[in-house]
Amino acid sequence: MEFSGYFPIWQKLTAAQQSAVSEALIHRTVKKGTVLHNGSMDCTGLFLVKSGQLRAYILSEEGREVTVYRLFDRDLCLFSASCMMRSIQFEVTIQAEKDTELWVIPVEVYRQLMEESAPVANYTNEIMATRFSEVMWRIEQILWKSMDKRVAAFLLEEAVIEGTNQLKITHEAIANHLGTHREVVTRMLRYFQNEGMVRLTRGVVEIADEEKLEELQNG
Amino acid sequence: MEFSGYFPIWQKLTAAQQSAVSEALIHRTVKKGTVLHNGSMDCTGLFLVKSGQLRAYILSEEGREVTVYRLFDRDLCLFSASCMMRSIQFEVTIQAEKDTELWVIPVEVYRQLMEESAPVANYTNEIMATRFSEVMWRIEQILWKSMDKRVAAFLLEEAVIEGTNQLKITHEAIANHLGTHREVVTRMLRYFQNEGMVRLTRGVVEIADEEKLEELQNG
Repeated sequence: MEFSGYFPIWQKLTAAQQSAVSEALIHRTVKKGTVLHNGSMDCTGLFLVKSGQLRAYILSEEGREVTVYRLFDRDLCLFSASCMMRSIQFEVTIQAEKDTELWVIPVEVYRQLMEESAPVANYTNEIMATRFSEVMWRIEQILWKSMDKRVAAFLLEEAVIEGTNQLKITHEAIANHLGTHREVVTRMLRYFQNEGMVRLTRGVVEIADEEKLEELQNG
Repeated sequence: MEFSGYFPIWQKLTAAQQSAVSEALIHRTVKKGTVLHNGSMDCTGLFLVKSGQLRAYILSEEGREVTVYRLFDRDLCLFSASCMMRSIQFEVTIQAEKDTELWVIPVEVYRQLMEESAPVANYTNEIMATRFSEVMWRIEQILWKSMDKRVAAFLLEEAVIEGTNQLKITHEAIANHLGTHREVVTRMLRYFQNEGMVRLTRGVVEIADEEKLEELQNG
């Protein structure tokens, strides 16, 4: 499948906009570990992930890394193009966590699209809101670490009780057990899923990596 | 001055859009301490600050507060209208930190504007990027600043906001801003006092040596 199949608002572009994007696109294949963008590289362009996995992290003076979000198939990375908006006043490093195939959209082409097209600007808003939510979630985790341990402990206990790693339980029920809100549990389980610790299907939480979950619980 | 003077892209709205906004606007005056929005109030609307000061904070299960950003004259608050975008998946509490005059723009009116108008959508993008930058800055502070630096940074920031080195603030309030305990702040301030950086009197923290405090913050 080509770019048009990965860019959800392709059909909302005019023919002229579509061909401007198509002509400007750069296709890249990078090995796991490659740093695609950092603060000292100005405006690398926007990345659209075709396959693979990227992570965005911030780096302290002392060189400590903290992952702030991850990007999977079809995700668009705005912050590798921080010059696109004057209000983006921070820098992240973007690294390939797996071998990754992606498209680079040059900043000038995308900026032009945003200025002309309300659908593109609103799509960009939704992406920024998604990343914002991830970052807020990360802050909450940093500040209030205990809930992830409590959810991990609950799942492990439940697996022992039920004698299976396939737990038939709703997020609501887990929340009731822990005295918290369903939304908190849902976000936590999605985070666990992104980390490969659980698999979520309708009405079922499957423990996918017991060891990792135990490490989290005890860490 | 009226709303049109506070909303920077007013001139980019059509006459029809301008009158739709004017008719829907709600003018509010609230006392210091008023909670204008929290997670359990759905979609309060967007706030545009005319005068005063708001702060956005997140709240833990245990009731600890951490300030994530502040809003001053002419600032627009998007996250009191989190239903506006489906990708906003977090909740903040918005409280008046001073007596505040503001306008509330109903969500449906603003959403309509964003959908129709690329300038409004791009303006919204810039605001979100600004808040995002503030939150990233806050994460970096949390992760990489030892508490002494965080307290120093807070006092210096507060002095700029208030336009005075005589800060009328309790240790409890500082602790809430930084997501820590009052005792920690009190010990830190006593240490600062011993070092000649501040002077403590009842209800007041006076910055006595700004330069030394700045050195600590940056050191």
